[in-house]
Amino acid sequence: MKCTKCGREAVVKLRHHNLKLCEEHFFEYFEKRVEKAIRKYDMFTRSDRVLVAVSGGKDSMTLWYVLNRLGYRADALFVKTWSGDLAFPAIEKIEKLGKELGREVHVIDSTAYFEGLSTYEIAKLLRRTVCSICGTVRRYLMNKFAVENGYDVLATGHNLDDEATVLLGNILHWQSDYIYRSWPVLEKVHEKFVKKVKPLVLLYEDEVRLYADLRGIDYLKNACPFSLSATSTLYKRILNELEREQPGVKIRFYTGFLKEKEKLFRLEDKHVELRECERCGYPTTSRICSFCRLREGVLEKINLKAGR
Amino acid sequence: MKCTKCGREAVVKLRHHNLKLCEEHFFEYFEKRVEKAIRKYDMFTRSDRVLVAVSGGKDSMTLWYVLNRLGYRADALFVKTWSGDLAFPAIEKIEKLGKELGREVHVIDSTAYFEGLSTYEIAKLLRRTVCSICGTVRRYLMNKFAVENGYDVLATGHNLDDEATVLLGNILHWQSDYIYRSWPVLEKVHEKFVKKVKPLVLLYEDEVRLYADLRGIDYLKNACPFSLSATSTLYKRILNELEREQPGVKIRFYTGFLKEKEKLFRLEDKHVELRECERCGYPTTSRICSFCRLREGVLEKINLKAGR
Repeated sequence: MKCTKCGREAVVKLRHHNLKLCEEHFFEYFEKRVEKAIRKYDMFTRSDRVLVAVSGGKDSMTLWYVLNRLGYRADALFVKTWSGDLAFPAIEKIEKLGKELGREVHVIDSTAYFEGLSTYEIAKLLRRTVCSICGTVRRYLMNKFAVENGYDVLATGHNLDDEATVLLGNILHWQSDYIYRSWPVLEKVHEKFVKKVKPLVLLYEDEVRLYADLRGIDYLKNACPFSLSATSTLYKRILNELEREQPGVKIRFYTGFLKEKEKLFRLEDKHVELRECERCGYPTTSRICSFCRLREGVLEKINLKAGR
Repeated sequence: MKCTKCGREAVVKLRHHNLKLCEEHFFEYFEKRVEKAIRKYDMFTRSDRVLVAVSGGKDSMTLWYVLNRLGYRADALFVKTWSGDLAFPAIEKIEKLGKELGREVHVIDSTAYFEGLSTYEIAKLLRRTVCSICGTVRRYLMNKFAVENGYDVLATGHNLDDEATVLLGNILHWQSDYIYRSWPVLEKVHEKFVKKVKPLVLLYEDEVRLYADLRGIDYLKNACPFSLSATSTLYKRILNELEREQPGVKIRFYTGFLKEKEKLFRLEDKHVELRECERCGYPTTSRICSFCRLREGVLEKINLKAGR
């Protein structure tokens, strides 16, 4: 198998683009796609301070690596949501990469807000799903950290497969609010709300994994045990099945949506009034933000149990 | 398994509605769904003359049967697109059902317009797909027949699976024109253009088959050998896989679309000017309609071959 660009031995065949690439041209292709997403969706510039939400997994580690490689100023933020040493392997890998890149690694501990409880323990206590708790906690703490530390933008490692999967689910159930909001950038709509971006949206999950492996990025292989919800796994499998028979359908489906969105959908500005949370002052649509409500719920439950 | 309505032995479990039904209540359910589609989408009334496009298969035969059972005045039209006796088994079954229903059966022969050539032979001659030829020929001749014979509406047997499959394909590729046009009714937009309706759109393919079998409707079991295009089979399989894990996803996807369509999509009237074909006078968007163009192409080719 020869590289389509230079004729050298290819390391990968990208069926969706009908391309075979050697290592060097695959790196070039990958980095160009990242750069393209950043420019096309006006994510940030080389003078912005970027904070990458890293988990230690392939997507976020690759994002952090490639942004720095492309000359962006990207530090890392890790939110530790477990008590004890469970987070140690992740933090170790993140700090190692931070040294290689010469970039700062910030670690914040969510358990400090919940009397030492992990998101898993909170979920059990409140009989809610771990993902919903973890989502609320991470979103809040990452935004707060970025705002307080003067970062211009918060970048997450969502890839094409992630975005196409969510879009398919939202369309199958016609979740119009989520369809409206589906975009690689969430603008800064409040001074305490950092701009959020997804620079890997034009790259397949397999491409991210291959890039990480070829670049020798040391990431955590095991996914979060809670991340594999039945429905998102189902939609991912469905899209993979479609992709096998129609190479490129995933990227055409997702970028087609981005291209046609304004023309196709009524995007009357469903503007929601943001106010400041009565407890913490961060933007929310209700009186008290979901993080503070969660926190109060947990503390109340703990006190009840302790008979306080 | 007991009927949810009456406690008698159930013959079917409708997972998508979480219902178990005996034969009697399944018939009631089925017929109510047909009636609901007819009323909700304003298809026709009991005083209208309905022409059902029948192929001899389960969907169109069931549609014809159930419309008459519900008190509508529905005759049948069969378009014979093959030369010779190939159509005989279909016509035999259609005529048998026509006698039972006390309704007229019209048979028209498309080969008469093409010097005896079947749609299959035309496709071979012009190196086009059979489905595209057959579609052009049938659409034209059925419309012409309905108009010339004073029918108010032409009904086809498309079921929920058909419609959901096409919708999914159009969305995966963001075929906006087809998404706009996706609706169970095509209005009469020209005096030589009959209104077209699909009264089975709220019923799963399996429900139609079961109804036909329980009612003892004698239909052709073998599908058209050309009807199974690779892509529509793929989308149908994908939807079946989704349905197995999320019972009801098909009906929610399709009816959700019908419900949200106007709110969700920009439906600026993409009005296309219809004029009359210079050859036959039937409505078309171009100078000569696609049927007449096809016909001229075929005759030209035949004359060339014969050295005329």
